[in-house]
Amino acid sequence: MANFAIMGFGTVGSGVAEVLRMNGASIGEKLGEPLNLKYILDVRDLSATPYGGIAVKDFSVLENDPELDVVVESIGGAKVALDFTRRALMAGKHVVTSNKELVATHGRELLDIAREKNVNYLFEASVGGGIPVLRPLFQCLAGNQIEEIVGILNGTTNYILTRMVKAGVPFAEALKEAQEKGYAEQNPAADVDGLDAGRKICILSDLAWGREVLPDRISVRGISGLDLLDVDIASRAGYRVKLLGRALKLADGTQAAYVAPHLVHESCPVAGVDDVFNAIMIRGNAVGDVMFYGRGAGDLPTASAVMGDVMDALQHRSRRRKLGWSESASLAGPDALVMRWYMRGGSASPEGCQALSDGAVITGPLSVGEAGRLAEKLGAAALLPVFQ
Amino acid sequence: MANFAIMGFGTVGSGVAEVLRMNGASIGEKLGEPLNLKYILDVRDLSATPYGGIAVKDFSVLENDPELDVVVESIGGAKVALDFTRRALMAGKHVVTSNKELVATHGRELLDIAREKNVNYLFEASVGGGIPVLRPLFQCLAGNQIEEIVGILNGTTNYILTRMVKAGVPFAEALKEAQEKGYAEQNPAADVDGLDAGRKICILSDLAWGREVLPDRISVRGISGLDLLDVDIASRAGYRVKLLGRALKLADGTQAAYVAPHLVHESCPVAGVDDVFNAIMIRGNAVGDVMFYGRGAGDLPTASAVMGDVMDALQHRSRRRKLGWSESASLAGPDALVMRWYMRGGSASPEGCQALSDGAVITGPLSVGEAGRLAEKLGAAALLPVFQ
Repeated sequence: MANFAIMGFGTVGSGVAEVLRMNGASIGEKLGEPLNLKYILDVRDLSATPYGGIAVKDFSVLENDPELDVVVESIGGAKVALDFTRRALMAGKHVVTSNKELVATHGRELLDIAREKNVNYLFEASVGGGIPVLRPLFQCLAGNQIEEIVGILNGTTNYILTRMVKAGVPFAEALKEAQEKGYAEQNPAADVDGLDAGRKICILSDLAWGREVLPDRISVRGISGLDLLDVDIASRAGYRVKLLGRALKLADGTQAAYVAPHLVHESCPVAGVDDVFNAIMIRGNAVGDVMFYGRGAGDLPTASAVMGDVMDALQHRSRRRKLGWSESASLAGPDALVMRWYMRGGSASPEGCQALSDGAVITGPLSVGEAGRLAEKLGAAALLPVFQ
Repeated sequence: MANFAIMGFGTVGSGVAEVLRMNGASIGEKLGEPLNLKYILDVRDLSATPYGGIAVKDFSVLENDPELDVVVESIGGAKVALDFTRRALMAGKHVVTSNKELVATHGRELLDIAREKNVNYLFEASVGGGIPVLRPLFQCLAGNQIEEIVGILNGTTNYILTRMVKAGVPFAEALKEAQEKGYAEQNPAADVDGLDAGRKICILSDLAWGREVLPDRISVRGISGLDLLDVDIASRAGYRVKLLGRALKLADGTQAAYVAPHLVHESCPVAGVDDVFNAIMIRGNAVGDVMFYGRGAGDLPTASAVMGDVMDALQHRSRRRKLGWSESASLAGPDALVMRWYMRGGSASPEGCQALSDGAVITGPLSVGEAGRLAEKLGAAALLPVFQ
């Protein structure tokens, strides 16, 4: 029998318990041994739930149980979660998490501890919710050199943008709808300001190139300043506005990573990904473009990914998965990355531009720095990068 | 140092050698040891190629080399490939393949030998070319009960259908174009008659539910009989015609699997998958729908998947991956699976149908048996299932 514990009994934690209840028999069959949920650690009183009998409030119970194999960390944040994850790994437990903030900011240290202790620290659920993407990236595509990763990494903002594009609803109203439907938190800053997508693109970048990219080192722009007029102009020209996280390796060997709303041409598969769905496209030098699509959040989809990792950790109990990244990546300066740009409201139209309606244009290829300087010089009211 | 051999130096085999040439340094770094291509087995004379020095014609050289860890089988077919795979596994070598015919028809036996010998038999490249799909299915989604798998599994037929739908080119002409572009073989039967897609849906079904479904036990219908008129009528009603392989678990515990051209509503993500691209959608009871998309064939994409498996086998040298399926699945009868149907040219329109142009209709839910009997009774000229 294999024993695991859940730390933090919120949306994800309770989803993991529910997946075990739904699928415990087939999970045990695949593992070749029953999987037993031994403890749930939470500060709240769970005695009125079916899990009252296994609820604990003291982390040291988990830490000191030699029969506990795996700990699921679904506390969130990077304080208590960091402390408990460190201690669980030090105590020789495998740890599985969906906590993108913790992985993005402290993943390197935690993977180092895991290596020393010969245990697994796995986090498939931290990017793309239930969509398999990290394991395909580091395992199935291991024979490739990864060239670029681009994705719709946040379901909340994709829902809001879909409403803006398809129904002409302004940002503030679309956000309110998303909150009413339970897709957005009451404090939606981490989603709408792009921080959540930023953490996820950092994790993808860490795994793809083996060098740490911390979220506070990359440029992150959300959708709260987005004008419905620009969404309209783009639509009429055959583009959808999508919040994309993007990470790439440049010709000079440096890396770039950022989050921003982009114009995406409707012929690109990413453009058709609507509502709360996520999609991640990975370009490898042998495989070309592959794309992974599905629900990027929600209790059961996220729990599906956590459970896959719990099973993987148990199947690699004696021999841990080789996983980790080294110190800071060399990031490109603002003049290295070149794209086309959507610009509106400038005092003049620069040469070689494609004219759209309402005085908006799409420029030729310009670096991030060049585009910014040009928009400032011309007094442009809107500047957005164009993807493909 | 890890040693591997390639058996069969055609499209896939030479692609694997090329991926090693391109990415050998990063592959060795990820493995923690250099990966060495020790032999290429082929009946042809390779002395004029850069691989002349490692070319061999006698399989027993591979079989008897105790330092050879992994064998890539890219011979194709189920005769010589079967014999050599059996013998390689018996000799304690890990075997990696892209050979869908062999896996679909003899996978169970070969996986049994692999288990006895404690080696890996891996075949990610057999479905979806370079797209990671089998490993995500049996590993990342292991916490789910799989409910349904549906996919565009053959790039040649998808190219032909895209030309028919988008440019109004008749089947015979589109096939000729595909042959000229190198997408279709001179003898295109295995592709256009649906046999290739049939083998792939069987492999997906074997892995999803752990019970063997042999290709000759399922209904397979290709696209050679497809009338451009039906493609047109469907397009005007908002549907695309796609050749889908489909496998599902029914409420009574039986399974169904088949290949047929379907009408797919344009709001379904699968409908937008065009040209030689493949897409596989998997529905799990926790994760919901996830989709995998990319190039389903070609030398380097397929070699990418083969190389990922070679690396995985080497990382699981001592402890093999638990993989396999047992004897024959219980397949549903023709009255168990219920869908809506596109029907054209019947003498009367059955009740409850949605009328399309040219006398075509979409029926309400009918079982496979019912739809066939109805079409016969009314003398319908075309009958196609509708997906979603």
